Amino acid sequence: MHSIQFTAQSAANGIVERDFTVGDVPGLLWSPATGAARAPLVLLGHGGGTHKRWPAMTGRAHLLVTHCGFHVACIDAPGHGDRPRTAYDEQEVAELYRARAAGEPEGPIVVRYNADLAERSLPEWRATLDALQALPEIGGEGPVGFWGINMGTAIGVPFVASEPRITAAVFGQHWPDALAAKAKEITIPIEFDLQWDDEHIPREAGLALFDAFASKEKSLHVNSGRHKELPRFEADSAVRFFARHLGAAVPASA
Amino acid sequence: MHSIQFTAQSAANGIVERDFTVGDVPGLLWSPATGAARAPLVLLGHGGGTHKRWPAMTGRAHLLVTHCGFHVACIDAPGHGDRPRTAYDEQEVAELYRARAAGEPEGPIVVRYNADLAERSLPEWRATLDALQALPEIGGEGPVGFWGINMGTAIGVPFVASEPRITAAVFGQHWPDALAAKAKEITIPIEFDLQWDDEHIPREAGLALFDAFASKEKSLHVNSGRHKELPRFEADSAVRFFARHLGAAVPASA
Repeated sequence: MHSIQFTAQSAANGIVERDFTVGDVPGLLWSPATGAARAPLVLLGHGGGTHKRWPAMTGRAHLLVTHCGFHVACIDAPGHGDRPRTAYDEQEVAELYRARAAGEPEGPIVVRYNADLAERSLPEWRATLDALQALPEIGGEGPVGFWGINMGTAIGVPFVASEPRITAAVFGQHWPDALAAKAKEITIPIEFDLQWDDEHIPREAGLALFDAFASKEKSLHVNSGRHKELPRFEADSAVRFFARHLGAAVPASA
Repeated sequence: MHSIQFTAQSAANGIVERDFTVGDVPGLLWSPATGAARAPLVLLGHGGGTHKRWPAMTGRAHLLVTHCGFHVACIDAPGHGDRPRTAYDEQEVAELYRARAAGEPEGPIVVRYNADLAERSLPEWRATLDALQALPEIGGEGPVGFWGINMGTAIGVPFVASEPRITAAVFGQHWPDALAAKAKEITIPIEFDLQWDDEHIPREAGLALFDAFASKEKSLHVNSGRHKELPRFEADSAVRFFARHLGAAVPASA
């Protein structure tokens, strides 16, 4: 097992942000500045073409630390952020750009490429979670959440299906093709985001993925708007969801 | 125009509750105890078989007054609460109980009876809103919300479609048959609740009604569970929705 190596640290606004590596996978860990008490952990999966320090990731981390006092971690997916692309990564990215420029559907390429990334990511997420739980301020007992939309869902659904340590998850905005079978193995509470006017993911496809989860407790949040117009208040809703399910007090002003 | 007649008043926990009548329609008005400053108004439509003082109504009113400082009003629908039933009301209620006991679908009866109630309710809601806006603490300028699920949606959708004074609404849990055409005339922000395992309203029917709203800004909240299992946190979500759209500060702890 790889232990966690911290490579940089900064602090601002009551949040400590630490760069880390587990093996050759780089990540970020955000924690409350106020102490060493144990707190729940939320893992963030970033979207396709972005990385661990993308504004949506730092924004979600700050909400979770500030309103819930949780630890929050994000790692770069293979071929993303500070990680090298393989020849296969280059090929799929080129194919995606080609389809986009030609006005062809992106779905088949995204579904196929994300399924490959998920396979490569799963052992990395497991090793990261092992290493994070070895930290005294996180520990191996506490509840763990997973929050990933788009590619974060493509990686998160198979990861969560295989990982009993995850106890609540926020997913959304992906196709059922490669994921519905794994979603049927998931029984933890789920919040799921869809865009009603998504130009890439047909409504029926998004609803089918939500429907596939075996969770007794699941919520679907649909909003009008296109793929990239997920309203910012859904981040506040996800924070409240994790506060309910990971055992923190209800946030004061999220 | 009927003016409002107050018939009883009580106060507790920072909330003043006043019984009123407008013509022969009885209602309740909840207001912040702390003053005469003008504040937005939210109208509550109760569900079938219940009335203005049902726990869901008083609970929603208390959330809105406490967290947003709004005025909140609810009137008894025709044949409900303190109002007499006509022979037609008795006949439809008997028919509903008969269908329920026989295990037959309730939908066709509810759709038909609620459409009749909506027709009778609309002039009553208009007169109530006129009378409430004549009060100095409400006034004729401020934003007005409408919040009604089930029968509250059956009455609320045609009411809101005909009433430009309503600027935001929470609906849910009804069939599109009598309502979709009216929903297509509605363009204000909407939050809409559905139950994914509703034993009365098929998923496709609920989704079709949500889809019908012409609102640029609309959100759908689906939760696992049966018709009567709408989670309580959806009331908190509705309160945040009205806080966003009627101009109050974001609630401190809803």
